[in-house]
Amino acid sequence: MRMIDLIEKKKHGEALTDEEIDFLIRGYVDGSIPDYQMSAMAMAIYFKGMDTEEITHLTIAMAKSGDTYDLSGIRGIKVDKHSSGGVGDKTSIALIPWVASCGAKVAKMSGRGLGFTGGTLDKLESFTGFQSGMTKEYFVRQVNDIGCAIAAQTGNLDPADKKLYALRDATATVDSKALITSSIVSKKLASGADAVVFDVTCGSGAFMKTPEQAVDLAQTMIEIGRKAGRKMCAVISNMDEPLGYAVGNILEVQEAVATLRGEGPADVLEICYALGSRMLVLSDIAGTVEEGRAVMKQHLEDGSALRRLAEMVKAQGGDEDLVWHPEKMPDAKIHKVVTAPSDGVISHMECDEIGNASMVLGGGRETADDVIDLSVGIILKKKTGESVKKGEPVAVLYANDEKRLADAEKRFDCAIDYAPAGTRVKTYPVVIETVD
Amino acid sequence: MRMIDLIEKKKHGEALTDEEIDFLIRGYVDGSIPDYQMSAMAMAIYFKGMDTEEITHLTIAMAKSGDTYDLSGIRGIKVDKHSSGGVGDKTSIALIPWVASCGAKVAKMSGRGLGFTGGTLDKLESFTGFQSGMTKEYFVRQVNDIGCAIAAQTGNLDPADKKLYALRDATATVDSKALITSSIVSKKLASGADAVVFDVTCGSGAFMKTPEQAVDLAQTMIEIGRKAGRKMCAVISNMDEPLGYAVGNILEVQEAVATLRGEGPADVLEICYALGSRMLVLSDIAGTVEEGRAVMKQHLEDGSALRRLAEMVKAQGGDEDLVWHPEKMPDAKIHKVVTAPSDGVISHMECDEIGNASMVLGGGRETADDVIDLSVGIILKKKTGESVKKGEPVAVLYANDEKRLADAEKRFDCAIDYAPAGTRVKTYPVVIETVD
Repeated sequence: MRMIDLIEKKKHGEALTDEEIDFLIRGYVDGSIPDYQMSAMAMAIYFKGMDTEEITHLTIAMAKSGDTYDLSGIRGIKVDKHSSGGVGDKTSIALIPWVASCGAKVAKMSGRGLGFTGGTLDKLESFTGFQSGMTKEYFVRQVNDIGCAIAAQTGNLDPADKKLYALRDATATVDSKALITSSIVSKKLASGADAVVFDVTCGSGAFMKTPEQAVDLAQTMIEIGRKAGRKMCAVISNMDEPLGYAVGNILEVQEAVATLRGEGPADVLEICYALGSRMLVLSDIAGTVEEGRAVMKQHLEDGSALRRLAEMVKAQGGDEDLVWHPEKMPDAKIHKVVTAPSDGVISHMECDEIGNASMVLGGGRETADDVIDLSVGIILKKKTGESVKKGEPVAVLYANDEKRLADAEKRFDCAIDYAPAGTRVKTYPVVIETVD
Repeated sequence: MRMIDLIEKKKHGEALTDEEIDFLIRGYVDGSIPDYQMSAMAMAIYFKGMDTEEITHLTIAMAKSGDTYDLSGIRGIKVDKHSSGGVGDKTSIALIPWVASCGAKVAKMSGRGLGFTGGTLDKLESFTGFQSGMTKEYFVRQVNDIGCAIAAQTGNLDPADKKLYALRDATATVDSKALITSSIVSKKLASGADAVVFDVTCGSGAFMKTPEQAVDLAQTMIEIGRKAGRKMCAVISNMDEPLGYAVGNILEVQEAVATLRGEGPADVLEICYALGSRMLVLSDIAGTVEEGRAVMKQHLEDGSALRRLAEMVKAQGGDEDLVWHPEKMPDAKIHKVVTAPSDGVISHMECDEIGNASMVLGGGRETADDVIDLSVGIILKKKTGESVKKGEPVAVLYANDEKRLADAEKRFDCAIDYAPAGTRVKTYPVVIETVD
């Protein structure tokens, strides 16, 4: 079998066989297939796509390309959630202890990654002393004890995806449904969860620009996951503006804590309910989504969700006191208020640009060696569709460096579009659709 | 400027600017753009194409990527021919001295390359002692003295094409009109010819499978060449069966010599007339193609074309006696006659497979280190459309090794399709169309 023949075949829109896909993934991981052939294949897949059978086999081949986690030491159904990413996404920090307090078992492996803000692990380090590295035994015991753990990936999990993702990122082949699906689902298969709820984001801050694309991706992921024997469902969520008001690391953690105190923004609360209720259904804790929401509401109101976050932080070496007093976390030196240039209505937020502004402030990583400044970021004062008066605050930029601030301010200004006062602006709810 | 943005742009079908194309070629040649990004770009170009302006600029950027030859020391118009390649193509060996005997100046730089048989340089080494390496001064003097020279490329000619061609060859991105055009024309621009006649082959043994594709390629090449200030025209020729009867190195040289003796196959003769008459027109030696043919006919019949071949061979150190007595060239040890399995008509020849059979016998190079066996090859006894009786010879395989012969025979058998006796088979003339 020769890689060039497989590229030729895909170029002409033919389906690859299971054997061919195995050859492809094995050869790419062991280095016998060079990057330059794989990138040509990725571009051919971008243009010609893959059918469900191909994506299923690709996903399974990738999941098997390295270690797979055995979570059988954890009692009960292991449930996980996965977000396609966005700006201001602090959902995991609130949601995971919350559903654990309702009885779910969430053994979450997380990465750090590049991007606008740190990953969930970086954000959790806002709790001084928080450790994401742990032995498998400790991980399993913690989930059995308190229902949840958020740990750094260890071992050689899905090396095919690691290598292929880095290549796609450098060759403009990220936005292929087949490659996105296999990348996401293969990691979930390898990480051992029995059930997964996907948060498929769509809008200006997400890979999927329209709800239709997001639903299509969600259906494909769910179908592939089911073929591989896992229970899956999805929530399509709006990423046409940041989630909540906070973008950054400490700022997002503070908003997540506020959410568990019952004081969070409506959209953060709603996406937690939508995802969490489905996690409880897939865990057989609730019979219906409505029942799941009721269980969650009860655990929010009686304070057990917030207590569970404190327990998780403590179990992983973090300063529990900061859960009760998040205002003690370090504050950025400069608070710069951005105001509206004239009376009007916020008609659009270019989510990516808001993320870039946060990254420029030092809140995200451009390269793997960058050190994240946890205290910087952005607090929005207005969201899309809201009216503003000239000079009224639209956001506050939290910075530690004047030069970075100037750059971030310029980017932030460009990210916000205004319409004349009185204009009616179409906005989406945070949960656009669900795919069960 | 970032390569990834250029890939993204081409992926969406947008045209690249001159500056972007310069960045692309410069970066690829200096190594700052890696192969894996270039192969993704090549695949995006395969799917989305390039407009004439882009191809023109790409061609010029590639031509300028290394040395360019200065042939100003040669008096008069320097004319060249270029064939898109095929099986049994011995045209250059007969044609170049022939048009030189008519007064044209042909300073041809040739490569060795991989493929079914050797390149023109390998074939010319059938004349014992023939040298293709020479100084630029010698090359210029020889063309001034006898009107022609066929030399090995020296210096760093079109390194962008060398690197890109090898990459395309490994990534199934050879068959892109934009990339084929720029590859062919950029080398011609760099090699300094004032005028070029293209032999664009089409059929089972060529890149272009249909006459329409070949005409389209020819028109694009001519347009790009003219924009770059060179005179160009093209002949579309049939490569649905080998050219002439001989496939191999010595066997092809013998057929080329026979052609200059007036004893060559009709199709070899006709393609020489079609290409040569146009070379004479572009050289201002003939006013029309018909006039060019008449001049050529005269120089064939008076023996000056053959004498010019002898002079060129002698000037380059080869044994001139072999031009007068080509039967003295080494003969292969085994002559194996292939016969028709039953009465019928030859309905199709899979040209590539006949070429592969010759390569398997040892007549071509699979890798750059392979040593070519000049004496092996194939002599066809029948061509497409001819009737055969059961047991009648269809071809003779010339081999020096029984094992290679067995493999070649199997391939050759598969390459020939028969129809029932009496079937009328559609055949093409050797010159299908011309683009002036």
